[in-house]
Amino acid sequence: MIEEAKKSFEKQGFMHTLGAEIIHIDKGILKIRCKKKDSLTQQHGFFHAGVLTSLMDTACGYAALTTMPKGSDVLSVEFKTNLMRAAKVNTIIATGTVVKTGKTLVFCEGKITDEKEETIFATLQGTMICLKN
Amino acid sequence: MIEEAKKSFEKQGFMHTLGAEIIHIDKGILKIRCKKKDSLTQQHGFFHAGVLTSLMDTACGYAALTTMPKGSDVLSVEFKTNLMRAAKVNTIIATGTVVKTGKTLVFCEGKITDEKEETIFATLQGTMICLKN
Amino acid sequence: MIEEAKKSFEKQGFMHTLGAEIIHIDKGILKIRCKKKDSLTQQHGFFHAGVLTSLMDTACGYAALTTMPKGSDVLSVEFKTNLMRAAKVNTIIATGTVVKTGKTLVFCEGKITDEKEETIFATLQGTMICLKN
Amino acid sequence: MIEEAKKSFEKQGFMHTLGAEIIHIDKGILKIRCKKKDSLTQQHGFFHAGVLTSLMDTACGYAALTTMPKGSDVLSVEFKTNLMRAAKVNTIIATGTVVKTGKTLVFCEGKITDEKEETIFATLQGTMICLKN
Repeated sequence: MIEEAKKSFEKQGFMHTLGAEIIHIDKGILKIRCKKKDSLTQQHGFFHAGVLTSLMDTACGYAALTTMPKGSDVLSVEFKTNLMRAAKVNTIIATGTVVKTGKTLVFCEGKITDEKEETIFATLQGTMICLKN
Repeated sequence: MIEEAKKSFEKQGFMHTLGAEIIHIDKGILKIRCKKKDSLTQQHGFFHAGVLTSLMDTACGYAALTTMPKGSDVLSVEFKTNLMRAAKVNTIIATGTVVKTGKTLVFCEGKITDEKEETIFATLQGTMICLKN
Repeated sequence: MIEEAKKSFEKQGFMHTLGAEIIHIDKGILKIRCKKKDSLTQQHGFFHAGVLTSLMDTACGYAALTTMPKGSDVLSVEFKTNLMRAAKVNTIIATGTVVKTGKTLVFCEGKITDEKEETIFATLQGTMICLKN
Repeated sequence: MIEEAKKSFEKQGFMHTLGAEIIHIDKGILKIRCKKKDSLTQQHGFFHAGVLTSLMDTACGYAALTTMPKGSDVLSVEFKTNLMRAAKVNTIIATGTVVKTGKTLVFCEGKITDEKEETIFATLQGTMICLKN
């Protein structure tokens, strides 16, 4: 399902808007890189919390899809974001990891770090649902 | 603090990217309108969950700011989004409402509805923090 | 499914431990009353956040069950609690309400109030899953 | 603050009700053990989701307290529980870990595992607040 995840990601107009690109994908894990632009900022000029969440949601959703049966599609059911510190950097990495995959629901964890993946700016816990086509 | 909230909203590059505009603001409540564009979609062409969350987060953050003392600034601490049904409409309204305001933390609720505010597509529970300047 | 919800509630040893009792049940809504005992407190002698959450989770779960097809069972998938103010009262009411019911998942909201349902101490957003027997 | 955390834990009537005991405590981490009793069950005889959440909340709260300045007290602001699989075991371990500590807020992660800490049954993301006495 890795190819399916990449193709579906490409169809998301919003990921193009964010300038997001997949830099790593394997079964149960996906990493997305995003560079700061004025069009992605909150009132202090840092990455908007909504941008961070959008990237983590997408990383988790497609990490989940890689664990689903062929022909599946994925939708987010819910997610929860903790914003630990302002992301005062120029490049961020969103990592989505599958914690537990089931027939219907997949539990995931996401995080936003700097490019070296040393400092965590935000974390996400989310639930994805498998849609059978 | 209503004027401060409007001004801070204008400084968010990301709200311009989303084409978001404040359509109602009063103490403890804020409504934002957003129209669908290809640049805001997920893989099926509907509003991306990240867009819905970004709008609700921002509506809640500035609803919170309107209840804070003069000179304050606001940051999101955490929020949780439930995605109830795909937002298959052309215009959405994000409403942020303050549930309880404290000296440091403000609890808010957000929702995404159609333009008539009849159908709920998503809800959010969030915590905002008051920063003293 | 109202009778099924009542019966299943009775089977929860933990609800007996809390001294919880259903005081209202209808399709999509359930209210539980709980009285303070030393065995339910946190370090300051108020209701423990875990007690509040347990009551809201259970109220939401059985509110969800009343909307499911005959023969279904219910499990909690996830929930999120906001603790707005310490519950410094002797009797609390937990209300669970269904926000949107689907074939598989049911979205609910919960709240903890005083006995008159005037002051909100905590809120919960949760997702329940329908298990077919 | 390790001794303070232990003492405060002892004051929680609800932890006695659950039969919970601290089995490990260090700066930023706390582990609690809990054994199954009929008084802690949901309708199928497994640990109630509310029990799991109560243990994770408490483990996180006191893990947070160990990172706070002398004389502080701790309260939960909010937390989010994901229930991955039914806890069909007789003994569970709740681990609370500090992810980021700040002057006012402390972000924590919790998990419920079996006694060998191999299988994860539930996870929690939470925010704690530091109260100065």
